[in-house]
Amino acid sequence: MKLYNWQPAPNCRRVRMFILEKGLDMPETKEVGYEFGLTADYTKTWTHALVPMLETGDGLRIGEAMAICRFLEEERLEPNLMGANGREKAVIEMWERRAYEEGMTGAAEVLRNSHPAFVDRGLQGSLEPVPQIPALIERGRGRLNRFYRKFEDQLRENRFVAGDRFTVADITALCSIDFAKLLDLGIPEDCPSVVRWHREVSSRPAAGASL
Amino acid sequence: MKLYNWQPAPNCRRVRMFILEKGLDMPETKEVGYEFGLTADYTKTWTHALVPMLETGDGLRIGEAMAICRFLEEERLEPNLMGANGREKAVIEMWERRAYEEGMTGAAEVLRNSHPAFVDRGLQGSLEPVPQIPALIERGRGRLNRFYRKFEDQLRENRFVAGDRFTVADITALCSIDFAKLLDLGIPEDCPSVVRWHREVSSRPAAGASL
Repeated sequence: MKLYNWQPAPNCRRVRMFILEKGLDMPETKEVGYEFGLTADYTKTWTHALVPMLETGDGLRIGEAMAICRFLEEERLEPNLMGANGREKAVIEMWERRAYEEGMTGAAEVLRNSHPAFVDRGLQGSLEPVPQIPALIERGRGRLNRFYRKFEDQLRENRFVAGDRFTVADITALCSIDFAKLLDLGIPEDCPSVVRWHREVSSRPAAGASL
Repeated sequence: MKLYNWQPAPNCRRVRMFILEKGLDMPETKEVGYEFGLTADYTKTWTHALVPMLETGDGLRIGEAMAICRFLEEERLEPNLMGANGREKAVIEMWERRAYEEGMTGAAEVLRNSHPAFVDRGLQGSLEPVPQIPALIERGRGRLNRFYRKFEDQLRENRFVAGDRFTVADITALCSIDFAKLLDLGIPEDCPSVVRWHREVSSRPAAGASL
C-alpha cells in the first residue's frame, strides 16, 4: 500500500490518525504537496486533485478520506472505529458527516477564501481557477459556530462524539477543530464540554503522532 | 419506523429510492415541509433543521441521508447497495461522496443563492438567517460542470457509477442530476455516457416511484 499525503492537510491527518488508532503499520507515504498546494506531478495522474489517496497495491486507487478509512476498517476489524452493527454504524456516520459538513467545511471556507496563498483556489478539487469569495469567510465562521454549539450539546451528554467510545467521528471532529485553531477559530469559551472532550482525545497517542 | 420527509427535497428522494431498491416497505411518512422550507413544528424538535430523518421506533433518531441508508442496509442485507467487502465498500463510498460533494452540492449552491424563496436561507441546516451569496451561483455551476465531466469519464468505462452493478452511488448521482435539471442545468451534450446511464437508471421502478 502507498499513501499519497500532504502533511498539513487536515483530511490527510484524518486518515493517518485512523491508521494509528487501528494499530496498522503506516504504509509507505509519498508527500505530494508543497507549501500551499499539490504538485503538478500528482494532479496529472490523479485529476481529482485531492488528498489523501491510497493505492492498495493491486491496482485500486481510493480517494476521499472516509472511503480510505472504510477500506482499512474491513482490513482490520479491531479496534472497531466505524460501528459494529447497523445502529452504531448509522450513529457514527451521522456524526462524522456533521463534523465534516459543519466543522471541516466551515474552517476550509474561511481559509480558502481569505488566505493570499489560495487566490483563485477558493475550492479544493478543481484544476481550473476558482475565485475566492470574501462573503464565504463570514459564512464559514457561522458554520463553524453552529458546529461548536451542536457538538457542545452532544458532548454534554456523551463522553465521545458518537456515544461512549472513541470512533472515526471523534477523529473528524478533532482534525476539524485543530484546523480551525490555526485560523484563530478555536473552541469558544461557552463550550466547556467540547474543551473537556478535546483534552481527552488530544492525549491519545495517535492524536500526537498524526500531527 | 417513521420517516420525516419533504417530498421535493433531493436528499429525501435518495432515501426513498434506497428503501424501494431494497424492497423494504416504505415506513410511515410524515411530511414536514411546505413549499420552500421545513415547518417550525419539525425544526423545534429536530434542531439540525435538515431532512430526511428516520425514527427507528426504539428511541433512535437518525439524520443525514447516508446514515439512514447505512442503517437500512444492515436491516436487510440483500440486494446489497453499499458494498459486500472492503474493496467494494470503499469504491462505492468514494463515488457516492463525489456525487454528493460535486453534483448535489453544486446544484444546491445554485438554487439556494439564486431563488427568491431562499433569501436569508443560503445554506441548509441553519435556524439563523444565512444571506445568499450571488457569487456562489457561478461557483455552483462550475462545481456541477466538474461533476458531469468526472462522471462522463467514469461512465464511459463502467455501466454504473461504482462499477458493473447498481449501488447507492447511482442513487445520489441520479438525484443530483434530476435536481440540477430543474434548474436548467441538465446533462451537457458532450456527456453521452452520462446520458446513456441516466436513461438506464431512470427506467428502474424505484426511480419513478421515488419522485
